[in-house]
Amino acid sequence: MIRPSGIVTLTTDFGTRDYFVGAMKGVILGVNPEVQIVDIAHDLPPQDVPDAAFVLSNAYRHFPNGTVHCVVVDPGVGSERKPLVVAAGDQFFVGPDNGVFSFVYERETIRGIFEIANRTFMRPEISDTFHGRDLFAPAAAHLSKGIPPDAFGPEMSEYIRLDIVRPSVAGGILTGTVVHVDRFGNLVTNISRGAFAEFTAGRSFEIRMDACRIHSLSTSYAEVRPREPLALFGSADLLELSVNSGSAAELLGVGRGATIFIKRRK
Amino acid sequence: MIRPSGIVTLTTDFGTRDYFVGAMKGVILGVNPEVQIVDIAHDLPPQDVPDAAFVLSNAYRHFPNGTVHCVVVDPGVGSERKPLVVAAGDQFFVGPDNGVFSFVYERETIRGIFEIANRTFMRPEISDTFHGRDLFAPAAAHLSKGIPPDAFGPEMSEYIRLDIVRPSVAGGILTGTVVHVDRFGNLVTNISRGAFAEFTAGRSFEIRMDACRIHSLSTSYAEVRPREPLALFGSADLLELSVNSGSAAELLGVGRGATIFIKRRK
Amino acid sequence: MIRPSGIVTLTTDFGTRDYFVGAMKGVILGVNPEVQIVDIAHDLPPQDVPDAAFVLSNAYRHFPNGTVHCVVVDPGVGSERKPLVVAAGDQFFVGPDNGVFSFVYERETIRGIFEIANRTFMRPEISDTFHGRDLFAPAAAHLSKGIPPDAFGPEMSEYIRLDIVRPSVAGGILTGTVVHVDRFGNLVTNISRGAFAEFTAGRSFEIRMDACRIHSLSTSYAEVRPREPLALFGSADLLELSVNSGSAAELLGVGRGATIFIKRRK
Repeated sequence: MIRPSGIVTLTTDFGTRDYFVGAMKGVILGVNPEVQIVDIAHDLPPQDVPDAAFVLSNAYRHFPNGTVHCVVVDPGVGSERKPLVVAAGDQFFVGPDNGVFSFVYERETIRGIFEIANRTFMRPEISDTFHGRDLFAPAAAHLSKGIPPDAFGPEMSEYIRLDIVRPSVAGGILTGTVVHVDRFGNLVTNISRGAFAEFTAGRSFEIRMDACRIHSLSTSYAEVRPREPLALFGSADLLELSVNSGSAAELLGVGRGATIFIKRRK
Repeated sequence: MIRPSGIVTLTTDFGTRDYFVGAMKGVILGVNPEVQIVDIAHDLPPQDVPDAAFVLSNAYRHFPNGTVHCVVVDPGVGSERKPLVVAAGDQFFVGPDNGVFSFVYERETIRGIFEIANRTFMRPEISDTFHGRDLFAPAAAHLSKGIPPDAFGPEMSEYIRLDIVRPSVAGGILTGTVVHVDRFGNLVTNISRGAFAEFTAGRSFEIRMDACRIHSLSTSYAEVRPREPLALFGSADLLELSVNSGSAAELLGVGRGATIFIKRRK
Repeated sequence: MIRPSGIVTLTTDFGTRDYFVGAMKGVILGVNPEVQIVDIAHDLPPQDVPDAAFVLSNAYRHFPNGTVHCVVVDPGVGSERKPLVVAAGDQFFVGPDNGVFSFVYERETIRGIFEIANRTFMRPEISDTFHGRDLFAPAAAHLSKGIPPDAFGPEMSEYIRLDIVRPSVAGGILTGTVVHVDRFGNLVTNISRGAFAEFTAGRSFEIRMDACRIHSLSTSYAEVRPREPLALFGSADLLELSVNSGSAAELLGVGRGATIFIKRRK
């Protein structure tokens, strides 16, 4: 049993110029006036589920046990995709069954995944286009008040997991992918510190992305000259290509999905 | 008598890169440290009163009774326009008398509209350009503490209402207008579900906007192929033109003020 | 001794599409679940320390005594720059030693500036690129719980102050600089109301910036016709060039660093 912390976080692609986020907050406070609502991010790229999964995966673990994370990036709203309540690790998650919780499933002990089906915990009228307000907000608020996850509907044994792209090794080359580009233009790859260390095993290496070649790891942006590229392990503990006082995405002209190659010397 | 909920919401065009929102929050917390401040939206189009009125109208009703909604989209700041405290329905509203509360006036029982004139509830020095900080924030905070609306100044019998554009029927055609374009590029019109049903009366119809023709209503974006347009009743219960996984505003090249025609078959 | 208000404000350049702000909030709530977190601004221009210093300087003073202001605009993260806890006036400040607190140092009684060095108040693992999460967030949270500033590390006698650009008078001309451009395109200069009054001493004057000439002060935007420029003292009590219903930055084609000249008649 996870005890609710009284905190509900919001992660959406609703932006900050519409009524969507405000309506969700109103609904949450209507159900639980004592709740503490915390904005994680609302300007996620529209309808980009993998990016939302990545952002959530780097934020949720820092919250107190029993926090409810409500994530609404939901291109399939109104279709057959199920609305979910997830209890995993020491936290709760509420959102569409579209893979947005893939990293949670991978990392945490899943205590239960339930379809939101019980109309007691929904708004009386359900729109076809705004389940954030009509299903997810009230579910999150009820969880934060102590309603147990299994009260929301039947347990689900199948649910969507994104095909998480993993780095691969072949012919002495470690190949990875850019999985996120942050506000500063840092190119975050899927190569973890552990995978990198195992591959290079202390030997010298060359990192290649597009026309860029890097032969050492930095620990801070300031180690190279302004506008020069560097590679380091960023705050998600993943290999990033960055530019001191600039944007690596702009300098290299690449974005998410770009390929990175690590070649080790023999 | 409306009992305050202890919640103050903020809806502004101040953006999220300036001190404006922070200064307002500081002033509010200075007056009422127990208040819960809720951001509705701060990236409203600058000085666009009709858009602010629309956003507010779709957010306020979801909040607990006694919530104070502070709205600052205020192109006339420093001019003769009056600062207002409004008690309507079960909620309070604070902002400039420029029509931003038009939908509230239309839908709610007006309990009283008062000019903010009592200097007791203002900051000691009033700037000419930032009444959000100097008048509206302190008024909202005092309301949230239980100061009654009539304590702020004289009751007003005249106040600004926007000319709300309504759909019209002529020659067998229902003509409406795009009143809001949301972050996803959905074109929200002023045609309500009721007006549409009354007009079509179960007969087949054609929806026209610019070069686009649609002959049925969808209930979700996923019902058409990606990049294809559709029409549905959105979360504001108004007819919207949308594009699955895309922006209708971009695809059709139109924006707010665009005209929509509904023609019914005989 | 400053008593904490239980409020922590956040001012960053982390944007609202990444996990950075969410991770910081989670860490803060993990340390102090009772805290009230207040967003000041997250879309500050990336890595622009002078702009962050300006925004902070116009927001912090409005908060209750004992508020902790956590500011993370930190191009030097991971380099030799020190992380700071500052007690000044009646408030606390947490952030990098890069000059972002320059206006605080100038205006407030400094009660103590301390390096964050005590690992008790940090996250167990410190990344090289995200001290916002690993150092500043936990320090702010601990301050908000009553940990005294001198518990964080050694007092510092030297710390970075930005070279604050001041207006100058020569040859009967007062020369100032645009120090901030706000969301509306208002050009905020470094000429205070006092400096202007002292210089003009009641005589008539001409304000010049680029091709623009203005011969009187306005008190509100509405005093001139739409799209026309005007000069007024804005909410920071500094001389601003503005355009009624438009952007002065666009109309004049200038930005931060632009020069303004005031010439007085003899």
